[in-house]
Amino acid sequence: MKRRILMKGMAAATVVTVVRPALAQADLLPSWNDGPVKQSILDFVTRTTTMGSRDWVPVPERIACFDNDGTLWTEQPVYFQVAFALDRVKAIAARHPEWRAQEPFRSVLTDDRAALAALGVQAMVEVIAATHTGMTTDEFTKTVVDWLATARHPRFNRPYTDLVYQPMIELLALLRAHQFKTFIVSGGGLEFMRPWTERIYGIPPEQVVGSSGVTKFELRPDGTPVLMKEAKVEFIDDGPGKPVGINRFIGRRPVLAFGNSDGDQQMLEWTAAGSGARFMGLVHHTDAVREYAYDNPSPVGQLDKAWAEAIRRKWTIVDMKGDWKVIYPFELK
Amino acid sequence: MKRRILMKGMAAATVVTVVRPALAQADLLPSWNDGPVKQSILDFVTRTTTMGSRDWVPVPERIACFDNDGTLWTEQPVYFQVAFALDRVKAIAARHPEWRAQEPFRSVLTDDRAALAALGVQAMVEVIAATHTGMTTDEFTKTVVDWLATARHPRFNRPYTDLVYQPMIELLALLRAHQFKTFIVSGGGLEFMRPWTERIYGIPPEQVVGSSGVTKFELRPDGTPVLMKEAKVEFIDDGPGKPVGINRFIGRRPVLAFGNSDGDQQMLEWTAAGSGARFMGLVHHTDAVREYAYDNPSPVGQLDKAWAEAIRRKWTIVDMKGDWKVIYPFELK
Repeated sequence: MKRRILMKGMAAATVVTVVRPALAQADLLPSWNDGPVKQSILDFVTRTTTMGSRDWVPVPERIACFDNDGTLWTEQPVYFQVAFALDRVKAIAARHPEWRAQEPFRSVLTDDRAALAALGVQAMVEVIAATHTGMTTDEFTKTVVDWLATARHPRFNRPYTDLVYQPMIELLALLRAHQFKTFIVSGGGLEFMRPWTERIYGIPPEQVVGSSGVTKFELRPDGTPVLMKEAKVEFIDDGPGKPVGINRFIGRRPVLAFGNSDGDQQMLEWTAAGSGARFMGLVHHTDAVREYAYDNPSPVGQLDKAWAEAIRRKWTIVDMKGDWKVIYPFELK
Repeated sequence: MKRRILMKGMAAATVVTVVRPALAQADLLPSWNDGPVKQSILDFVTRTTTMGSRDWVPVPERIACFDNDGTLWTEQPVYFQVAFALDRVKAIAARHPEWRAQEPFRSVLTDDRAALAALGVQAMVEVIAATHTGMTTDEFTKTVVDWLATARHPRFNRPYTDLVYQPMIELLALLRAHQFKTFIVSGGGLEFMRPWTERIYGIPPEQVVGSSGVTKFELRPDGTPVLMKEAKVEFIDDGPGKPVGINRFIGRRPVLAFGNSDGDQQMLEWTAAGSGARFMGLVHHTDAVREYAYDNPSPVGQLDKAWAEAIRRKWTIVDMKGDWKVIYPFELK
C-alpha cells in the first residue's frame, strides 16, 4: 500500500531506492523473540554477507548445515522415522503371518512398547530392515509419501510434517536470502527425508545428507533399470559420521551449523575448526507445554557432552521456551 | 562495437530491447560444428526449458550429469589421477627406502611401464593406497593442488587442467544458463576432483559425485578435528555404481547425461528410464591428430556395450573429429 502511494508521480528507479531501506528493516525472523540469540544470528548473517566486512564469506563458501530430528522438526515421543517403520510393520503384516509369533514384530503388532524397548537397538534394526529394504527406491519413496499423507502424531493429532519449527524455517529462508546454501545433515535416512524436504523446508534432495543402506542397480526382465534397497547398512550419518558425511557429500566445511544433541557435537566441532567467521548453534528443548522438555538423560536426542562444549566454547544455545514466539507453523493460523 | 553505436542517442531501456534478439541468436555452442548433433542438443534445451512446451521440465528437476574422464577432459595415455599417483610415489619415495626393492613401487620409480602393466590392477590399488591415504583430507587436497600447478601432460606439455574439452565447457554453460544444475558423476576420486572442478568447469564440490575411500573423524591432541583418509575403499562410482551414486548424492534422476565409455552405460540407462524428455549422449574419441582415437578394445575408456546400446536406442553420439571445431580451450588463443 505504502509502495503504491510512493509510486505516484515518481520514476521507477527512484522507487527502488526508497523501498530498499524499508525491506532491510523488516523483521526477517518474526517468530524469534528479540534478545541475544536472535541478535547473534542477525549479526552473523550481516557480518558474513556484507561486502567490505572483515568477516565477509564468498558466496560459494556460504554452506549452512542443519540436523533434522529435534533441530528442524520434533523428535518425540520417538523419531518420526521409527513411527513410520512401526506403522509399516502393521501395514504389511498380512503378508507376513509368521510375524505374529516372531519378535520384534509380535511386540510391534500388539503395541507392546515396553517389550519392544526391552528388545533394544537390535529390534529396531530388524524393524527398519523389514520395512526399508527388499524393494526399489521408487517403491520405498511411495510408502513414505503415502504414510506422511495419512499418519498423525499421537499428541498433536496432525501430520508429522506439520511439526516443523517455524523459527528454523525462517532462519533457513533468511540464510538463503543471503545466498547461503542450506543442507540437512541428519542421522535419519536419506530416502525417508528426500521426498518432502523441498516442499517443507525448501531444501532440495541433492542438499540432504543422511544415513543410507546399500542399493543395487538391477535390470528388470523387461529392461527397466531399478535400484534395489538391500538389508545392509552403508553409512550412519551421526556423531563422528556427520563431518564424514559433510566431507563426502558437500566437500566444503560449513560456516554455520545447527544441531540439538550429542549426535551433532562433531559436526559443530568440524564447523568451528574452519577459518574465518563461524556460527555454531544448539536448539535446547525447554518447552514441555508447547513441545517437549528434555536434555540429559534422554533416550531420544540426549544433550550432554555437546551442551558442555557449547557452554565452554560459547556456542549459541537456543532456549525454545524463551527464544521462540511460536514453535509450529500452524500456530500462526 | 555494434552495441556502442546503437546506444548513441537511445534510452538505455530501448537498448535492452534491441540487444535481446541478438543474444538469443548468438551461437551458444561456438566450438561445435553445425550439424545434427549440435542441433539435437539445442533442440533438447529449448524443448525442456520453454514454458508451454510439451517437454518442459520444472527447474528443480533440471539435473544434468557428466562423466569426467574422457567426457569433460582427456583420459589418455592414462587416467590423470593415475599419473598423479605415479608422480606422488616418486615425490615421497625418499620417505620409503624399502620401495626400491618392493613392487609395484620399484617399477614406478624406474619408470618401467611394461612391468607395471604386467602387475595388473592390484598394483594400481597399492599405488593409490600409498598415495591417497594415511593423511588428512586437507593434506591430500594440498598434494592435488600442488601437483596440478606443476605437472605437465607428456604429449601436450601442458597442465592437465588445460586438457578439458572446450565444447563440453560450452555445453555446461548453456545448460546452466537454462537453469540446469550440472553434476559430475565420475569413477575418479571425489577428493581428487573437488579442488579444481569449480574453477575449471564451474561445477562446485557439492555437485561432484565420485569414488571414495573411508575417512575417519579424529581429534588431534590439541583438540583440532581432522578427517583421516584410510586405506579402505568405500564406494566405486563406475558402471552400475553410477546410478547408485546419483541416487545417493543427488536423489533425483537426471534428465540429461553424458559419458564416453562402458562405465557410463548404466548411468545412461538410468537417465533414459525416467519419464518425459531425456537426453543421453556419448563422446566418441575419433581424433588421433588433435586428441586420441580409441573405442574398442581400449585399456582406458573402452566403448563397446554402451556403443551398441546407443546405436540401438538412438542416443546421441558425438564424433569429436567431425562435431568439434576445437578440442581444447588453448586452441582459441
